[in-house]
Amino acid sequence: MGWGDLGAFGEPSKETPNLDQMAAEGMLFLDFYTASPLCSPSRAALLTGRLPVRNGFYTTNGHARNAYTPQDIVGGIPDSELLLPELLKKAGYTNKIIGKWHLGHRPQFHPLRHGFDEWFGSPNCHFGPYNSTERPNIPVYRDWDMAGRYYEDFKIDLKTGEANLTQLYLQEALDFISKQQASQQPFFLYWAIDATHAPVYASKQFLGTSQRGLYGDAVREIDDSVGKILKHLQQLGISENTFVFFTSDNGAALISAPKQGGSNGPFLCGKQTTFEGGMREPAIAWWPGHIPAGGVSHQLGSVMDLFSTSLSLAGLQPPSDRQIDGIDLLPVILQGQLIDRPIFYYRGNELMAVRAGLYKAHYWTWSNSWEEHGKGIDFCPGQSVAGVTTHTQEEHTYLPLLFHLGRDPGEKYPL
Amino acid sequence: MGWGDLGAFGEPSKETPNLDQMAAEGMLFLDFYTASPLCSPSRAALLTGRLPVRNGFYTTNGHARNAYTPQDIVGGIPDSELLLPELLKKAGYTNKIIGKWHLGHRPQFHPLRHGFDEWFGSPNCHFGPYNSTERPNIPVYRDWDMAGRYYEDFKIDLKTGEANLTQLYLQEALDFISKQQASQQPFFLYWAIDATHAPVYASKQFLGTSQRGLYGDAVREIDDSVGKILKHLQQLGISENTFVFFTSDNGAALISAPKQGGSNGPFLCGKQTTFEGGMREPAIAWWPGHIPAGGVSHQLGSVMDLFSTSLSLAGLQPPSDRQIDGIDLLPVILQGQLIDRPIFYYRGNELMAVRAGLYKAHYWTWSNSWEEHGKGIDFCPGQSVAGVTTHTQEEHTYLPLLFHLGRDPGEKYPL
Repeated sequence: MGWGDLGAFGEPSKETPNLDQMAAEGMLFLDFYTASPLCSPSRAALLTGRLPVRNGFYTTNGHARNAYTPQDIVGGIPDSELLLPELLKKAGYTNKIIGKWHLGHRPQFHPLRHGFDEWFGSPNCHFGPYNSTERPNIPVYRDWDMAGRYYEDFKIDLKTGEANLTQLYLQEALDFISKQQASQQPFFLYWAIDATHAPVYASKQFLGTSQRGLYGDAVREIDDSVGKILKHLQQLGISENTFVFFTSDNGAALISAPKQGGSNGPFLCGKQTTFEGGMREPAIAWWPGHIPAGGVSHQLGSVMDLFSTSLSLAGLQPPSDRQIDGIDLLPVILQGQLIDRPIFYYRGNELMAVRAGLYKAHYWTWSNSWEEHGKGIDFCPGQSVAGVTTHTQEEHTYLPLLFHLGRDPGEKYPL
Repeated sequence: MGWGDLGAFGEPSKETPNLDQMAAEGMLFLDFYTASPLCSPSRAALLTGRLPVRNGFYTTNGHARNAYTPQDIVGGIPDSELLLPELLKKAGYTNKIIGKWHLGHRPQFHPLRHGFDEWFGSPNCHFGPYNSTERPNIPVYRDWDMAGRYYEDFKIDLKTGEANLTQLYLQEALDFISKQQASQQPFFLYWAIDATHAPVYASKQFLGTSQRGLYGDAVREIDDSVGKILKHLQQLGISENTFVFFTSDNGAALISAPKQGGSNGPFLCGKQTTFEGGMREPAIAWWPGHIPAGGVSHQLGSVMDLFSTSLSLAGLQPPSDRQIDGIDLLPVILQGQLIDRPIFYYRGNELMAVRAGLYKAHYWTWSNSWEEHGKGIDFCPGQSVAGVTTHTQEEHTYLPLLFHLGRDPGEKYPL
């Protein structure tokens, strides 16, 4: 999902009333980033609070490598990494992941070996092939056991775009929250649904409801689901005791646009790139009674901060034996502070750019290769900025390409 | 000002708290258009409720002509046109224009000859030259008499960007409203300030306050001024008896970006073009006690509708002796109706495109000429869509270039 996909962030169809309401009741982060323009490394960064180059979750075959395909994930999250749920356990939390894990599919990488108590979802995306090169046969797990496979037991109709997966994930979330509330046990729920990833799908009740086509139907279903989760917390009387954060793991994929692609608003390019469209994310914090309604923050934030912030909420300290890149956002969220910190833009293991304040310096520019581009693969459709959206990997280390993101959010005018 | 310049429309710096609040208390129009991608014809359309090709306010020297420079305005609004203030007079309204008239500078075109009772402002933009080719010497009028000239008596410091013109126009508006309230007389105020037109300026108190540079300072000053006007109406106790509409006369100019240019959000190109970036506008209706707070409308609207809607509010009928292109938006605003009507996109006297529902058909495509483009004049900086942002005037009359603006608001993927 991209920065521009929510009504609160200026999507012209304005079809996300629940997320917009969440923002109106909570705090909108306008300068919030993921840790990589791809799913897996971003999710590893979220759960470890560390940059992908530290937690080992990056591709190593060549700098600024383009694609991070499922086939590349022969490894997974190292045992040496301390994941958020492992730490939260010490404070008595029950941890559940619903949806996509994406940190390795071999037995040693199983989420229940890394701090989660429960799991319903898949080790990988719902596109295939995965084990088989013949057809998609991605497994779906309930805790330790395989519950079935996408397309076979968990249907996805590629012709109509119909699949009830988000509904299954929603119900699973509501049930887990009810169970925890009934047992008066604290919980960490990582609701990591795989919509709006291509191939895009939505439940029957949402098909055809969006002005934006199937992708918009999927966004509407997510919006509706988030609304139901928040309402459930309120109805159970635990909303003032539950911190909720909404964000995405990379910018909207534009290679699959317009039929399967979203919006990165006024920003340049999309998923796979380290331009703003690839890494700036919609982000909303919600915690009634604690976060002042209608708040807006320009804090430079990162998915890695959710690691540190969650620990802080649970009264825990981050590990002291390793570098943690996330910061505790509670002073930002509760007292309106602004913490000076940079944002690092990685692609593979290459540091492509850095943001400090309103300035962003590109050390490398690259969209994708001429070879790929010639095949119609385009990470920046309709956009072309001379010397910026380059199709060769251009190094600017000794004279970084500098942009002012306030005056030029679209990265069109190098200073 | 462009669609993407307000926080409520997704500007990433989100620096327009007053306009955002106006939207939260009123109704946001997401599909609202001006009648031309240039100032003069748009303003003529607003005041006559008629397309520029009907009211004579278009350039005739060649189809799809590019620029409408001040030097071109040798004519002005014909006496045969019936302007909104002329009609409102019949219902006892006192009419005032504050700011830019732009419908002719010769004596016969004076706004007080066309229904306005009071005027403080200029017949033209604040950029020059106007009468003199030596230096800018644009006159500023108070009613029938010249009160001074821009740059001379009404200072604009091009080096620092400082000018207090918006403050003068704000005070003039507050005074007029107070006077009308005191005398219990109905009024029509056309607050047609010339900020944010280049050369961009702001008052000292706003200089340097925006993340977006001088253009953002100007936007902040407008935002602050609108907030003060609305607050004044509330303090005088007449807000529930006063209909207020905020919009712009064309998309943000990108030729002067980034230093003097604004944002058209996710839309293609800017001022001077008939792509969405040139003609879709920010628009907010406000009328406490009548318009439900937080309303959002996808009604296809036009500045020409403000003519018909204003007449309706005053209990008047539109003239029956001529074609009126505006429609009465009150059923949309007060009852949430959606009225089926097309949007016509004119450039000069050429019908370039039509929108019906979510579909937009381009009969002509053109950004600007290769000759201009070669000189660095660019209406679509950083954007290039093959066969769409053409530098020659391409005709598609027999097979229009069709877009779905819901799935593809950026006009990148012809169907």
